[in-house]
Amino acid sequence: MNDRPRSTLSPDPSFALAARYRVVRSATEQLAAPLSPEDCAIQSMPDASPVKWHLGHTSWFFETFILTPHLKDYALYEPAFRVIFNSYYNAVGAKHPRPQRGLLSRPPLDVVRAYRAHVDEAMARLLADPGRTGELSPLIDLGLNHEQQHQELILTDLKHMLSCNPLQPAYLPNVEMPAGQERPLEWVEFEEALVEIGHDGKGFAFDNEKPRHREFVAAHALASRPVSNGEYMRFIADDGYRRPELWLSEGWDWLNANGIRAPLYWDGSNGKQCRFTLHGVLPVVPDAPVCHVSLFEADAYARWVGARLPTGAEWESAAAGVPIEGHFAEDRVYEPCPRTNCASFDQLFGDVWEWTQSAYAPYPGFRPAAGAIGEYNGKFMCNQYVLRGGSCATPRTHIRASYRNFFPAAARWQFSGFRLARDL
Amino acid sequence: MNDRPRSTLSPDPSFALAARYRVVRSATEQLAAPLSPEDCAIQSMPDASPVKWHLGHTSWFFETFILTPHLKDYALYEPAFRVIFNSYYNAVGAKHPRPQRGLLSRPPLDVVRAYRAHVDEAMARLLADPGRTGELSPLIDLGLNHEQQHQELILTDLKHMLSCNPLQPAYLPNVEMPAGQERPLEWVEFEEALVEIGHDGKGFAFDNEKPRHREFVAAHALASRPVSNGEYMRFIADDGYRRPELWLSEGWDWLNANGIRAPLYWDGSNGKQCRFTLHGVLPVVPDAPVCHVSLFEADAYARWVGARLPTGAEWESAAAGVPIEGHFAEDRVYEPCPRTNCASFDQLFGDVWEWTQSAYAPYPGFRPAAGAIGEYNGKFMCNQYVLRGGSCATPRTHIRASYRNFFPAAARWQFSGFRLARDL
Amino acid sequence: MNDRPRSTLSPDPSFALAARYRVVRSATEQLAAPLSPEDCAIQSMPDASPVKWHLGHTSWFFETFILTPHLKDYALYEPAFRVIFNSYYNAVGAKHPRPQRGLLSRPPLDVVRAYRAHVDEAMARLLADPGRTGELSPLIDLGLNHEQQHQELILTDLKHMLSCNPLQPAYLPNVEMPAGQERPLEWVEFEEALVEIGHDGKGFAFDNEKPRHREFVAAHALASRPVSNGEYMRFIADDGYRRPELWLSEGWDWLNANGIRAPLYWDGSNGKQCRFTLHGVLPVVPDAPVCHVSLFEADAYARWVGARLPTGAEWESAAAGVPIEGHFAEDRVYEPCPRTNCASFDQLFGDVWEWTQSAYAPYPGFRPAAGAIGEYNGKFMCNQYVLRGGSCATPRTHIRASYRNFFPAAARWQFSGFRLARDL
Amino acid sequence: MNDRPRSTLSPDPSFALAARYRVVRSATEQLAAPLSPEDCAIQSMPDASPVKWHLGHTSWFFETFILTPHLKDYALYEPAFRVIFNSYYNAVGAKHPRPQRGLLSRPPLDVVRAYRAHVDEAMARLLADPGRTGELSPLIDLGLNHEQQHQELILTDLKHMLSCNPLQPAYLPNVEMPAGQERPLEWVEFEEALVEIGHDGKGFAFDNEKPRHREFVAAHALASRPVSNGEYMRFIADDGYRRPELWLSEGWDWLNANGIRAPLYWDGSNGKQCRFTLHGVLPVVPDAPVCHVSLFEADAYARWVGARLPTGAEWESAAAGVPIEGHFAEDRVYEPCPRTNCASFDQLFGDVWEWTQSAYAPYPGFRPAAGAIGEYNGKFMCNQYVLRGGSCATPRTHIRASYRNFFPAAARWQFSGFRLARDL
Repeated sequence: MNDRPRSTLSPDPSFALAARYRVVRSATEQLAAPLSPEDCAIQSMPDASPVKWHLGHTSWFFETFILTPHLKDYALYEPAFRVIFNSYYNAVGAKHPRPQRGLLSRPPLDVVRAYRAHVDEAMARLLADPGRTGELSPLIDLGLNHEQQHQELILTDLKHMLSCNPLQPAYLPNVEMPAGQERPLEWVEFEEALVEIGHDGKGFAFDNEKPRHREFVAAHALASRPVSNGEYMRFIADDGYRRPELWLSEGWDWLNANGIRAPLYWDGSNGKQCRFTLHGVLPVVPDAPVCHVSLFEADAYARWVGARLPTGAEWESAAAGVPIEGHFAEDRVYEPCPRTNCASFDQLFGDVWEWTQSAYAPYPGFRPAAGAIGEYNGKFMCNQYVLRGGSCATPRTHIRASYRNFFPAAARWQFSGFRLARDL
Repeated sequence: MNDRPRSTLSPDPSFALAARYRVVRSATEQLAAPLSPEDCAIQSMPDASPVKWHLGHTSWFFETFILTPHLKDYALYEPAFRVIFNSYYNAVGAKHPRPQRGLLSRPPLDVVRAYRAHVDEAMARLLADPGRTGELSPLIDLGLNHEQQHQELILTDLKHMLSCNPLQPAYLPNVEMPAGQERPLEWVEFEEALVEIGHDGKGFAFDNEKPRHREFVAAHALASRPVSNGEYMRFIADDGYRRPELWLSEGWDWLNANGIRAPLYWDGSNGKQCRFTLHGVLPVVPDAPVCHVSLFEADAYARWVGARLPTGAEWESAAAGVPIEGHFAEDRVYEPCPRTNCASFDQLFGDVWEWTQSAYAPYPGFRPAAGAIGEYNGKFMCNQYVLRGGSCATPRTHIRASYRNFFPAAARWQFSGFRLARDL
Repeated sequence: MNDRPRSTLSPDPSFALAARYRVVRSATEQLAAPLSPEDCAIQSMPDASPVKWHLGHTSWFFETFILTPHLKDYALYEPAFRVIFNSYYNAVGAKHPRPQRGLLSRPPLDVVRAYRAHVDEAMARLLADPGRTGELSPLIDLGLNHEQQHQELILTDLKHMLSCNPLQPAYLPNVEMPAGQERPLEWVEFEEALVEIGHDGKGFAFDNEKPRHREFVAAHALASRPVSNGEYMRFIADDGYRRPELWLSEGWDWLNANGIRAPLYWDGSNGKQCRFTLHGVLPVVPDAPVCHVSLFEADAYARWVGARLPTGAEWESAAAGVPIEGHFAEDRVYEPCPRTNCASFDQLFGDVWEWTQSAYAPYPGFRPAAGAIGEYNGKFMCNQYVLRGGSCATPRTHIRASYRNFFPAAARWQFSGFRLARDL
Repeated sequence: MNDRPRSTLSPDPSFALAARYRVVRSATEQLAAPLSPEDCAIQSMPDASPVKWHLGHTSWFFETFILTPHLKDYALYEPAFRVIFNSYYNAVGAKHPRPQRGLLSRPPLDVVRAYRAHVDEAMARLLADPGRTGELSPLIDLGLNHEQQHQELILTDLKHMLSCNPLQPAYLPNVEMPAGQERPLEWVEFEEALVEIGHDGKGFAFDNEKPRHREFVAAHALASRPVSNGEYMRFIADDGYRRPELWLSEGWDWLNANGIRAPLYWDGSNGKQCRFTLHGVLPVVPDAPVCHVSLFEADAYARWVGARLPTGAEWESAAAGVPIEGHFAEDRVYEPCPRTNCASFDQLFGDVWEWTQSAYAPYPGFRPAAGAIGEYNGKFMCNQYVLRGGSCATPRTHIRASYRNFFPAAARWQFSGFRLARDL
């Protein structure tokens, strides 16, 4: 039986959808449960949003795209939320400016929770009507996958905010980190081929995974696992951050302008290499995948070892047959870990998002959805790079081989690592 | 009996000091009482601080300058607070960067309140020892006046933060605003004189009010009251904000760079001239003093009517004999109001701070206090301008004729207005 | 006989190389001939360089990479030029900061010309030695192609600088612009194919055109010619610059932050749509290709008509068989013009560089050259987009189908236009 | 006998005015004579202007305020210059933006010189008419004093521009620097007094020196000479730039943001303390006045020795009786020098402008001139500080005791030093 809820074989699809709705929505609330109102209100940088805003925005998504147009007599919880919780949908109307999301002490956390309950109650009414559910199912699925994306952002944005605090507070203290064994890096070879990539049409996918199409891939090899902290520490020790010949020009400027000398959250000031995590300040584990690096750092490391980053097509065609197993958000250990049970080609899913060298661009034949929902992905296809495979903060039910995450080359606050590739 | 605590005639000065300590400290807590943890955590601009930070910093002041050096066996509540709640005292050590005060979700509000209680309990012990109180009395007085300054900043910083919220929330809704009568502006004349200004040594004063010294003041006239909203609206209607000949060069650049067309918090977008206040959005009252204007705006208005701003010496020598009466923070109406009971030379104290043309500079013979306390005032004597008289957010017991407040010329989030002067 | 020098059939290759050297170098000097010392010294933005710097830097290239390592007894003209005229080669040593190239009143223009003569004299000695020329021929070819790139930059940087002058001075006034006929836009169809792109090894190419490799291209159509000014004016008239749904998110932010409402250099302030050119202010010609647009504008226009930009592989495989004819720098009319003699699939070369949707990235198997020369192209392969085909400011002998130019998405001061594509 | 050249006793004042006009105007041209067109075109920072712009602007001043309104049939040399060479007179109309003055390669230097000749020829006609000269004399005097101010700015702006060049070019090489003797610093005492300051009405003065008025000055002492390089080097050696307790808060931030560790133009990188001058790179002379320091540095030094900066009233009342002798621009040694012939209270005029602690503010009763000329001084009376006494780059005929120069506290590219004061 398939353990991925999105391709359920249940005879009553609307029942499954309603159940999935409850599961996903309550997972979001569980994430916020240990947090104070203040923890949920603060925004530490323009790229990140307060937890409270994530809680509201995900509800706004259902209200705006499903309840308002499709549920008769639906009453907006609060008209002002239409603006406050709009992220970037120009077609929906005005937006509260992104860098000012952290200025909103009101609505208080309790009201945002009440807003969630109001939306959930209305969604429950809608989901109880089998006639509607079939037709709206793709849109509701989009809303749930959207919510899962914000679950991961809640964790990464919260981590950044807590890291700015000299008290270095832990979100979930006293978590036991799994120990893993050391694994040598091996190379898995792939012959040249005209591969098919993109979503195959089974189950949910975002529009940016479509259409499925052919790409020619030359002979190459992929590393058996992501680059580890231990390996990365050797790059640092070899003056990797001080040798311009290893860096993209824009990366070298970025590094010098920001005084970058290690991955984000690393702190070696007390003699031992430590890192800030959602579970407190912990020593860097050599066998775990390196994390919180930019594309620039990933690319420089690859050049240092005479390798390169994989393309999206290389990654996806290699991952297509691999089971989606690994260390995910459901484990509630929000830090990449060494593998405890190793395959010869492994850790593609979970632990860390893997940077690829592929610019985020439309697939041949790409068509965004009609209306405001079409703004979801397509308008960001510029100056961003694709990451693959999900992380320790990604829900297991959210990821797949064709999934394309994307961030600018300098972004580091996501759980981003990388795997090496080379030409044959 | 004299209602101003600073010149008490009580036979037991230490008793009065202990009582005053309790009164001032609890006034701060009353200000925060209607606020949620989120309201107290957010910082809306680098110049403003979160309410929670003000609550902590004022306690840090007593802990750092009084308890740690002077109370035997005093235990720091939390060593990390030494850094977090240091404002700008380099001699005390490291400081958490001012623009990042709003990133501190921890310590939570409850812990900061516990910190206050810890400090208050220790201060009570210290104040119970008459032998110590005499010697420490000036330092404790400084701490209490410092706390009163932060009471005003709590209100102005909170007002700015709430104003950034599209919901336009009120801090204290449903307050009844006193109505006042219209008063024509009259000119009060003063002959040339060698005046004495600066603090006369009775009661508490900050170091920047000292020493008392002589200044020569030419013949001049002062307006009988501050400029009103009604008068200022005529300046706007006469294109005051669009005529470069009325403005200081730096003011003209500031105005254009920031699109300034009215006092801060004014909003005429719904056809009627309204303003955001701590009591909600209210119509602009023509007879109340204009408020939340920069020195640039005050100066341009004065040029428009062929007048000028007073100097600090003109203001202080005129105010020296005037009773300290007016509309202060104790009234809990945090908005300047029309006068209900008019003198011929009036409203010098309370309602609005009055910009002067005097740059904030040391008085002849000025000596800052020794040690870290010497950083309190002196190091800011550059590129700031002096304001006089206190506002509706200033405690009545905090102000006096010699008091010198100071802000940069572009600052508008304080309750700042102005009074006209002219040469004779 | 072949008029493209790079594939000469001359029996004495070194003679041809020496001749080519003289032709290319003197072409650079001819560009600067009409300019005053002041015209050559000023830098109008960090992206652009003064003409004088281009004159020096191209000489520095020969001095640094050919004369110093390979000509015995070569004496540096001036050691300080090693720093001043280094563009971005970290391996060569220190660089004068790019944004400060316009601060160098010294060396004066005459000295830079003497520097060129010094380098040319030494190069003539080297080129007279047939034993060396064969071995160094690839490096000298690189130097000459590098010089041609800077010839184009001299024109684009000069144009930007002159455009900043309210006098709107012309570089070459009184040029007769060729008139052309109107041509309807037609679609040329291409079937899906596994195409080969990249340089085929005949004659000179930059490393970023290699290696030749296969890409799979789906069925598509390309427009028969670039988008014209007339068509683009209809986009503007249809509120193209005010409709967010047409724009990439980053483009929409860029447009609003910079108040963009038309291509660079367009000026409609006098009632008629004019443009600043190197030949003075001239009316916009409807039948000429639109020029000086960013990738953002090209992409928005394409979305407006329901089309898209071509990929690099689509463009190159279509252009591979097309003769390199068109309107180039040798014509000394530095403005794109209507075509006078139309083919059914035309204007691929010359007039305007054509934006593609392809991010500038390494080809599979890409290897930069060893040493400092390896910094030439590879380190810029991030956050830039590929343009194809050359422009009216490109030397005819410099362009080829496999040529990849690259600029950031917001760049507009190059002669950049675009051609439409669509899926079949 | 009158020692001030500007108030000649010639029986024909108009003749004297015409002669003075020629002398002052030609002095400006002599300054530019050694410079190339490129030297005259480049702008190194927004605060500084190109020499060519100064040459044009000073001519524009006569054209705009004297020739156009007062010379019948005067024909503008070029209408576009009305905008290009307007500095900051809003009442005159549009201005070319100050930071873009360095983008104007056209008009070329020769045309600007022809513009000067055109204006001079017209002024000669005007000055030949005795009937007009008397009436216009104050305005012409203003134009000449304005021109002298720009003579000094030509030198300081040129110095900054040349200093940005890694070639470190000299404006006037091979100048012999006068040697001087060491002089101990002595204190000159002044009793408290009601002094009169401001211009006394004899000869020319700017409006900001008026009206003459009384100020009360407490007993104080002034140093016998400015602080020397040798003394300042001891401040540096005592970690003066690293001790926050010595600095104004804004100065401490400025110092850290800009990495300030010595006066502008100092360079100790080759083991010896040198400085860039208009005569080449020279060793720092211990007995010469320290120069190119900000108000922040002057103030910090004074605090380090337990002194302070003088007020403007202290400086002016002390200088009122002192002959205007010293080292001025006419000596063509553009660097402060040790005194060769010492008085007990000395070097008030020439060598270095002396920072005072006085904010630049209107004198009591100040009235700017009517019309555009009123923008000359008054609108800058905010956030600037007064300097006194002129420098080695000031014409001897331009300075007087009542003269008030003004710059922001962080400005260092003027020839600015300081003298100590202390309370008695």
